[in-house]
Amino acid sequence: MSILVVGTVALDAVQTPFGKVDNVLGGSATYSAVAASFFSKAKLVAVVGKDFPKKFIASLRAKAIDTAGLQIKKGKTFRWSGRYTYDLNNAQTLKTELNLLSSFNPKLPLSYRNEDFVFLANIDPHIQLKVLGQLNRPKLVVSDTMNYWIEHQKKALRQVIKKTDILVLNDAEAREFSEEVNLIKAAKALLGFGPRLVIIKRGEYGCSLFSRTFSFYVPAYLLESTLDPTGAGDTFAGGFLGYLAACKRISETSFKKAVAFGSIMASYAVEDFSLNRLFSLQRSDVETRFKDFQRLTRF
Amino acid sequence: MSILVVGTVALDAVQTPFGKVDNVLGGSATYSAVAASFFSKAKLVAVVGKDFPKKFIASLRAKAIDTAGLQIKKGKTFRWSGRYTYDLNNAQTLKTELNLLSSFNPKLPLSYRNEDFVFLANIDPHIQLKVLGQLNRPKLVVSDTMNYWIEHQKKALRQVIKKTDILVLNDAEAREFSEEVNLIKAAKALLGFGPRLVIIKRGEYGCSLFSRTFSFYVPAYLLESTLDPTGAGDTFAGGFLGYLAACKRISETSFKKAVAFGSIMASYAVEDFSLNRLFSLQRSDVETRFKDFQRLTRF
Repeated sequence: MSILVVGTVALDAVQTPFGKVDNVLGGSATYSAVAASFFSKAKLVAVVGKDFPKKFIASLRAKAIDTAGLQIKKGKTFRWSGRYTYDLNNAQTLKTELNLLSSFNPKLPLSYRNEDFVFLANIDPHIQLKVLGQLNRPKLVVSDTMNYWIEHQKKALRQVIKKTDILVLNDAEAREFSEEVNLIKAAKALLGFGPRLVIIKRGEYGCSLFSRTFSFYVPAYLLESTLDPTGAGDTFAGGFLGYLAACKRISETSFKKAVAFGSIMASYAVEDFSLNRLFSLQRSDVETRFKDFQRLTRF
Repeated sequence: MSILVVGTVALDAVQTPFGKVDNVLGGSATYSAVAASFFSKAKLVAVVGKDFPKKFIASLRAKAIDTAGLQIKKGKTFRWSGRYTYDLNNAQTLKTELNLLSSFNPKLPLSYRNEDFVFLANIDPHIQLKVLGQLNRPKLVVSDTMNYWIEHQKKALRQVIKKTDILVLNDAEAREFSEEVNLIKAAKALLGFGPRLVIIKRGEYGCSLFSRTFSFYVPAYLLESTLDPTGAGDTFAGGFLGYLAACKRISETSFKKAVAFGSIMASYAVEDFSLNRLFSLQRSDVETRFKDFQRLTRF
């Protein structure tokens, strides 16, 4: 199967206690499409400028990602610059240059309009709505967001969530959006907004899935060395939906396994800066770590 | 089987966003002995003063806890007063009155000296060493500690840990003691001090067990309402060792199940102030939540 991913493709500058990179490939759609590509074919909807290095497009195509929906416009690519201290759970944004993103008007190629599996990665909810409007009854819509949209575009975001099957967000966002401190209460409030499932990501502490009939918790796959947490949440969501789209039948068990595969993909993403580790990764590595993760958590 | 528990028996005053109590039963040995009592017989080694309410001793005996090792001395019981904000992971100590604890000289009744399973709950490491010195080759020694002893009694604490099979501590303590930020590196450094297993508790985020040959992670059992986190770590350790002592044969699987049972016991402890929930709890409740925990985490 294939999945459609809309979100940002960015040029990042990142500092962590373990190093510093500039002008590297980043963006919510990039991380999630590459993570999904290990399980399903990903179709990308995003915009970049003429300054966007061709080698990055080649890297995406090397993962068999369909870039027909990637607009290349006159102007500059969205740039994000951030810093992490030893508390790798919290990014400090140093600079955001929207550039072409501020006028991004997604137009889905015809070959994209009947996609069943859709990931609305973190981007302005108005753009997420425009993409949904061009789709012909998708089977499963997964949405992500961030605190900025919760604070500044709550109305549009609520419209997105009404059309969302699975809402993915981190614990701080879940608390802010639901106005509940307790995570179970926050999840219940968010389920009340419409989605069938809510996934609350907790960074290095793992993540929790909530539905009306069951819940599921995984700890994070601990690593001895984490270089750069950028994109971990997007990678999680891409791996999650990529795995689901490849399932013949989607059951409670597939949702749980999808969360575990998403976690595994995220654990690889943070092992190196940008998408370096995801680009060197083999599918067999993913399987090995998944089995290890089962051993690490089963009792 | 039975386990020997040495630690504090205290009178606590606790404030959380959900209420306030004073002169309630507390202490590291209290929580761990009561948690252990659901699986094994607990023998208590501690000191209290003449001011210690008799009803509290009756509550412990009602859990079939052996109080032959509980000294009742002229003077005042150890008192701890603390506060929690919405971040229930971090206690703020308001006042510590050592009282009789400052001169506590544990003397094990003869009937305690051949115990195989020993829990050295959080207390001055010199007291932990005095207890170890009176024991006849115990099979399994589990030790807990706190930042104060790491900072002020590192040498004595290192001696305790040399004689410890399983070291239990929280993430901040593990990082401080090992001088490693990364948890896997911290665990490896702590294993280097002697114990066969290191368990790192992470409060509301679960806990991780490390040995030289395997690791195991559990998320916390999430609750919709947490009233008072006091004693959660002690309850975890008591449940953990109580379960192990009741196993016919101790294997990797028993260690993992013991961690899960410890987590379940801790999840009950925080549902109410003091030991209120542990005193109303039935063994069948524990089994039910254990099965639920397996469903919540298995993939």
